[in-house]
Amino acid sequence: MNHRLEKLKSWMKEKNVDVTFLTSSENVFYLSGYYTDPHERLLALVVFQEQEPFLVCPEMEIYNAKRAGWEQEIIGFSDTDHPWELIQTSIHKRIKRVSKVAIEKEHLNVERYEKMLELFPQASFVSAEGKLQLLRMIKDAKELKLIEEACALADYAVEFGCSEIKEGKTELDVLNALEYALKQKGVTEMSFSTMVLTGANAASPHGNPGETKIKKGDLVLFDLGVVVDRYCSDITRTVAYGDINDKQKEIYDTVLKAQIAAIEASKPGTTAAEVDMTARKIISDAGYGDYFPHRLGHGLGISVHEYPSMTSTNQLRLEEGMVYTIEPGIYVPDVAGVRIEDDVYITADGVKVLTKFPKELQIIK
Amino acid sequence: MNHRLEKLKSWMKEKNVDVTFLTSSENVFYLSGYYTDPHERLLALVVFQEQEPFLVCPEMEIYNAKRAGWEQEIIGFSDTDHPWELIQTSIHKRIKRVSKVAIEKEHLNVERYEKMLELFPQASFVSAEGKLQLLRMIKDAKELKLIEEACALADYAVEFGCSEIKEGKTELDVLNALEYALKQKGVTEMSFSTMVLTGANAASPHGNPGETKIKKGDLVLFDLGVVVDRYCSDITRTVAYGDINDKQKEIYDTVLKAQIAAIEASKPGTTAAEVDMTARKIISDAGYGDYFPHRLGHGLGISVHEYPSMTSTNQLRLEEGMVYTIEPGIYVPDVAGVRIEDDVYITADGVKVLTKFPKELQIIK
Repeated sequence: MNHRLEKLKSWMKEKNVDVTFLTSSENVFYLSGYYTDPHERLLALVVFQEQEPFLVCPEMEIYNAKRAGWEQEIIGFSDTDHPWELIQTSIHKRIKRVSKVAIEKEHLNVERYEKMLELFPQASFVSAEGKLQLLRMIKDAKELKLIEEACALADYAVEFGCSEIKEGKTELDVLNALEYALKQKGVTEMSFSTMVLTGANAASPHGNPGETKIKKGDLVLFDLGVVVDRYCSDITRTVAYGDINDKQKEIYDTVLKAQIAAIEASKPGTTAAEVDMTARKIISDAGYGDYFPHRLGHGLGISVHEYPSMTSTNQLRLEEGMVYTIEPGIYVPDVAGVRIEDDVYITADGVKVLTKFPKELQIIK
Repeated sequence: MNHRLEKLKSWMKEKNVDVTFLTSSENVFYLSGYYTDPHERLLALVVFQEQEPFLVCPEMEIYNAKRAGWEQEIIGFSDTDHPWELIQTSIHKRIKRVSKVAIEKEHLNVERYEKMLELFPQASFVSAEGKLQLLRMIKDAKELKLIEEACALADYAVEFGCSEIKEGKTELDVLNALEYALKQKGVTEMSFSTMVLTGANAASPHGNPGETKIKKGDLVLFDLGVVVDRYCSDITRTVAYGDINDKQKEIYDTVLKAQIAAIEASKPGTTAAEVDMTARKIISDAGYGDYFPHRLGHGLGISVHEYPSMTSTNQLRLEEGMVYTIEPGIYVPDVAGVRIEDDVYITADGVKVLTKFPKELQIIK
């Protein structure tokens, strides 16, 4: 944790930021080790260039924050306290002049921002989010281990889901059964709303699972992820129920070829854009360019969508420690929807694939 | 819907608000009929004193918004459009001078607020949230019907949960089983994280369900709610597994007496504080005042916590159409935790209880 705070402090010195005031559960967790969803109550981590940082949370959570490993000051407040006065006092105990404050502009709401403007009428406010995204983008060994555990559970979920595919079952039947199986393994949170889509529904990149019954000759698409100790996985597999036609097979093979090529292109020094374009070119050359309407993938970690963004224009160079998804798809209305997604980790000289459910076309009989 | 917009417009005229710019999914839904969770993308409903309102949403959602019944203008934007420019143009097509803008200060983030400050450098910004809370507080017949359906499903969930209580089962076993049963009835969303708590866990007003096994002589507390077409229910029942001791019984009887008295005190003209104090006095007189640390209840509807707040100090008078919870509790560490919660609706001359699972102590054998 201290290592992470030191990196933030270096950035603050470079940018002349006097105070960084973080309020999202994700960023507070990343730097303090304490995760909580405070609902409408205030949660904040306040960091200085030199002085000791402090955490602000409801009084009844102080014990949990300490138990999570936060050893520095905690400002607890009750429902009748005025947390902003406590914060002002604690800041001014540390530094006298506040000229520049870094905040999470996409997270902090106007009501709280107005409080900060009152407290620091002389200060300018800059965004801390870009820096936090860059810090979080490079995973350490402990983070990788948690993501790998989350990936293994995602593999299990797809496997279990496949075993539930039977004539007459609906998308929701299969979805509910696989989530229940995960809960019995102790999973308490999914990375996002699980998708089980079949037939025409799977041919939309953002379909909603419903009462559609799975029938022979259909493709079934699973897109899901599991959270393990705050770290997310994200997998997509498309399987066949019974025999599928040649057009469906051609689409599947094209997506798989693109997906494997993008994995092979993933290594330190390559740009995100090059990886995206490797997959995109294969799909375009096969005549399906118009049916692949989204980016190749996205970073993942504490959030299911974080840096790096794997788009055709992102010139960011890949580095050891990055974790992201590779998920090309082809969606041809009334014909087929196929997406294949793995989570990968950039190593010192290549790539490690973290999700392991088979990718050669699975035919469920 | 138009009726609701007309009420908002009257308030805008009274307060000289030129533009109301709403961004939360809940308030946009309340006034437009269209619900979406736009994630990081912008969603907004823009309302004027006289001119036609417009909705702002991602391009791919326009069809859904229309299908949900929104007949007025929709500004759709793609990932490469600049929605703020489109908004500025659409506003200035309607009115030339913008002096006062109402926004959701607890919802709008600083990044978007800065865009608005750029667009309307002369304007002052006030909060729209209080007014929306007051509008949403009075439910119409359609809203009541949905809440009643959500309450019936909550009753079913408690009943099913009770049938799952057996020696050796954990809190999570019972919780997962009852949620799975709800999913099989088509429920796709709970009002909040379901709680099934037993023994010492139930003696904390904010325990977390876990691997604790239910054993004879324990109380088991269920706190859960179901969402039906965006409207929430919220029920708590505490049941006994096998025979419980006299102290546990005394606590149960005290909570039940307080809960029933608060229901009887609920009618138009009474204040929220009077209702809270009716229950609180019974609990205090029985010697448990220090063990009832929270408000009596909260309004519910599109949000699981909304107006009216049922506290000992809220002088708001009850009116026909309000829906709120009545949920006194007594939590004595290492002895017992009991809470009993119903959802109620204020009628023209009294109260209607919407949750119906029995409240006389249920003893599971």
